[in-house]
Amino acid sequence: MSLNIFFEKEKVTLNSIFKNYKFKKNFIINDVKPLLKSKKNDLTFLDTVKYKSEAAKTQAGACITTEKLSVYLPKNTEAIIVSNVLLELAKSLKIIYPNADIDYPDLNLKIVKKDNFSKVKFGNNVLIGKNVKIGKNSIVGSNTILESNVQIGSDCTINSGVIIKNTIIGNNVVIQDNCKIGQKGFGFIPIKGKNIKFPHIGKVIISDNVEIASGCTIDRGSIDDTTIGDNTYIDNQVHIAHNVKIGSNCMIAGQVGFAGSSQIGNNVSIGGQAGISGHLNIGNNVKIGGGSGVVKNIQDNQIIMGYPAVPLKDFLKKKV
Amino acid sequence: MSLNIFFEKEKVTLNSIFKNYKFKKNFIINDVKPLLKSKKNDLTFLDTVKYKSEAAKTQAGACITTEKLSVYLPKNTEAIIVSNVLLELAKSLKIIYPNADIDYPDLNLKIVKKDNFSKVKFGNNVLIGKNVKIGKNSIVGSNTILESNVQIGSDCTINSGVIIKNTIIGNNVVIQDNCKIGQKGFGFIPIKGKNIKFPHIGKVIISDNVEIASGCTIDRGSIDDTTIGDNTYIDNQVHIAHNVKIGSNCMIAGQVGFAGSSQIGNNVSIGGQAGISGHLNIGNNVKIGGGSGVVKNIQDNQIIMGYPAVPLKDFLKKKV
Amino acid sequence: MSLNIFFEKEKVTLNSIFKNYKFKKNFIINDVKPLLKSKKNDLTFLDTVKYKSEAAKTQAGACITTEKLSVYLPKNTEAIIVSNVLLELAKSLKIIYPNADIDYPDLNLKIVKKDNFSKVKFGNNVLIGKNVKIGKNSIVGSNTILESNVQIGSDCTINSGVIIKNTIIGNNVVIQDNCKIGQKGFGFIPIKGKNIKFPHIGKVIISDNVEIASGCTIDRGSIDDTTIGDNTYIDNQVHIAHNVKIGSNCMIAGQVGFAGSSQIGNNVSIGGQAGISGHLNIGNNVKIGGGSGVVKNIQDNQIIMGYPAVPLKDFLKKKV
Repeated sequence: MSLNIFFEKEKVTLNSIFKNYKFKKNFIINDVKPLLKSKKNDLTFLDTVKYKSEAAKTQAGACITTEKLSVYLPKNTEAIIVSNVLLELAKSLKIIYPNADIDYPDLNLKIVKKDNFSKVKFGNNVLIGKNVKIGKNSIVGSNTILESNVQIGSDCTINSGVIIKNTIIGNNVVIQDNCKIGQKGFGFIPIKGKNIKFPHIGKVIISDNVEIASGCTIDRGSIDDTTIGDNTYIDNQVHIAHNVKIGSNCMIAGQVGFAGSSQIGNNVSIGGQAGISGHLNIGNNVKIGGGSGVVKNIQDNQIIMGYPAVPLKDFLKKKV
Repeated sequence: MSLNIFFEKEKVTLNSIFKNYKFKKNFIINDVKPLLKSKKNDLTFLDTVKYKSEAAKTQAGACITTEKLSVYLPKNTEAIIVSNVLLELAKSLKIIYPNADIDYPDLNLKIVKKDNFSKVKFGNNVLIGKNVKIGKNSIVGSNTILESNVQIGSDCTINSGVIIKNTIIGNNVVIQDNCKIGQKGFGFIPIKGKNIKFPHIGKVIISDNVEIASGCTIDRGSIDDTTIGDNTYIDNQVHIAHNVKIGSNCMIAGQVGFAGSSQIGNNVSIGGQAGISGHLNIGNNVKIGGGSGVVKNIQDNQIIMGYPAVPLKDFLKKKV
Repeated sequence: MSLNIFFEKEKVTLNSIFKNYKFKKNFIINDVKPLLKSKKNDLTFLDTVKYKSEAAKTQAGACITTEKLSVYLPKNTEAIIVSNVLLELAKSLKIIYPNADIDYPDLNLKIVKKDNFSKVKFGNNVLIGKNVKIGKNSIVGSNTILESNVQIGSDCTINSGVIIKNTIIGNNVVIQDNCKIGQKGFGFIPIKGKNIKFPHIGKVIISDNVEIASGCTIDRGSIDDTTIGDNTYIDNQVHIAHNVKIGSNCMIAGQVGFAGSSQIGNNVSIGGQAGISGHLNIGNNVKIGGGSGVVKNIQDNQIIMGYPAVPLKDFLKKKV
């Protein structure tokens, strides 16, 4: 069972959250997860018909959804009927994970003691939280902060002024100066006067051989994780929002931005300053020209450019 | 009287700056302010006919302007006729506020003593200047710098690696890692070989319930202030230039950029990587699509997109 | 002879790198340089016909190139014929400069002792590497890192949280908070599973009177240097890639991005969020509108705008 290692979790039952609701089978909520990752003691959610096929396959014990969407759920998943799915989900998350809606900075950091990490080299004033793991032959630069429970593999080079939280990093990864990884994403329920912050209980997972250049920001996932695949290289000042999944062997040039929850295939190259809208699927071997604005799903092997991005041939035609 | 709390001010008279000029009534300059905020002992400026109606209402004691524009000033405001208004203004400011043209880093910082701030929690190595105020139940993360006279309200979460100067922050504000707030804006008189830096004597004012994500830069105002309204949420790597005024309940997505002196209404949402040119008025309830380049004023309730941005209907028509 | 002051260099002969190759005249490699900067004991490279005229004038002792391109080399330059020039160049560089392919953070930093720098003022926790030089009347803000051998002129203001490595800075330069200067650029030979990182042995050279605002990233050169000319002003969050050369008296607004190896003339102004593609020549006195995407060389005195950028007249025509 993969427990959430980064956030304190309260032991609460379905009934203690949804007090007016009569459950056939009350249970202590193990975790809150996406439809396909949920097990029988997990709570999930369904807020759009787009995910009806995932809904049909969920093993979740309970699912926050609307009356209309509840028909897509299997018999073993109890539907919790609400009018605003994301609002009720946010409220539930705040009860189960009370510290995940704001990036409360880790107040239990200590200047690293080199004895605790044999075969790891450190610069000055490296601040480390509880239970941080760092593999052999890794190097951590000065003024870098690794908050509690962060895991870093072997042969990694983490530069100076980097801040990492809620993140698991593989082997042979390079992270250049001043990157900020694992902070809460831009998620909230807009309410005039006082928005409700959406708790982010996901993490960032960075695979082996990844290189991330200076000044990038990578937000952790909200319910799911933000992931970066093997051997993907990311240039300076790239912004990667919550839940984005980038495949292997990708090349992402400077100042590219990814909105939340998009999925990028393998071997994708993206030119500088391009923007990828939220909730898109970009296939494998796609090439996206610099400055493009991608607003639709893109099939495998396409070469696209423009704002909004179109096949390169069409872009060139239009501009001549 | 609202004194400028952030910059050392010299006591100088009009005549000591403008030596060749015969004033009807010389006075010690209290402050340099925009037309409508000036009182009788303040110096103001008028460099474009665009502000003629503000000029008519000014209560300033004196105004740097051109011969042509001087006709718009009321009788009680003495016109100081020059050929280059901004150049003379910059020179005057440098005399009155000798330390505002460069971000001289605060050299009187000390590692915070927790005793001095009861009910505030601090990470490691928090550096604090003189006379900093922080309200109760606020948290400040490690390696963060709060320069002298900065004010932070209660229930705020200021994360790690943040640098704040010349700024006043309300209650319940969240600022994520590595934000840089209150530095001098991009203002200077271009001269080949050695530009003249325009002193920035304004500040940044951030209202209650604002959330600012990682890696944002918010420049302080030049003469006026840079302001961010209540409950406005700003995503990662957003750039906000000097004098920009953003209203309440706005949603600003990642990597958006605001050029100087633009005014944004309330309930405005702006998609990722959009750019707002300088000196524009964007109305209330405006929605601006991701990647847009806004170069004109926008009325209330418009939905716009494109580069340059046009009403969404026109944008979609053109692209099909 | 201008030795490379920033990277440890191994003493190796041509033959020890290219073992299967029979040289007329073997020699210890002094340095690896661009075609026109190489002398008789230097190794250079030619990977495109675009540089055939530079190739004809090179004084390099040896040149990695293809059979086809080798005809452009002078008699005194020995051609090392390979199929993939950049791959063999990267491998050679890794042998000669074993520490230049990753930004290994400087692990020999110390908190600055003010005695060592008379007439320089420091904030708290300034970390300095070996052999750093700082001119008189300069100021360095808190938490800033100056890695070994960095040179800073007199009357400079380096703000807080700045990280500088592999860089030479002139006099009267201002660098605002959190800039990251001199890190490795985004260069590698893409190989699925494990890219080969291209060693960056160049530096960053910043001339007198330059101002660089908060959060900028300036990568060092790969073989050549990244340079910024006199009195050029750069706004927040600008990204300057490896080998870019920016002239004097330029104005670069916020969030502009430069891809690698482009050359920008003097007196060029670039609006916010514009992007300049790689390997371009932008002339003198060029004005580039905000949000533009420049993909072609631009002659002197042009005013351009759009994506892709075209002369302003054409841009306005198209949009009306």
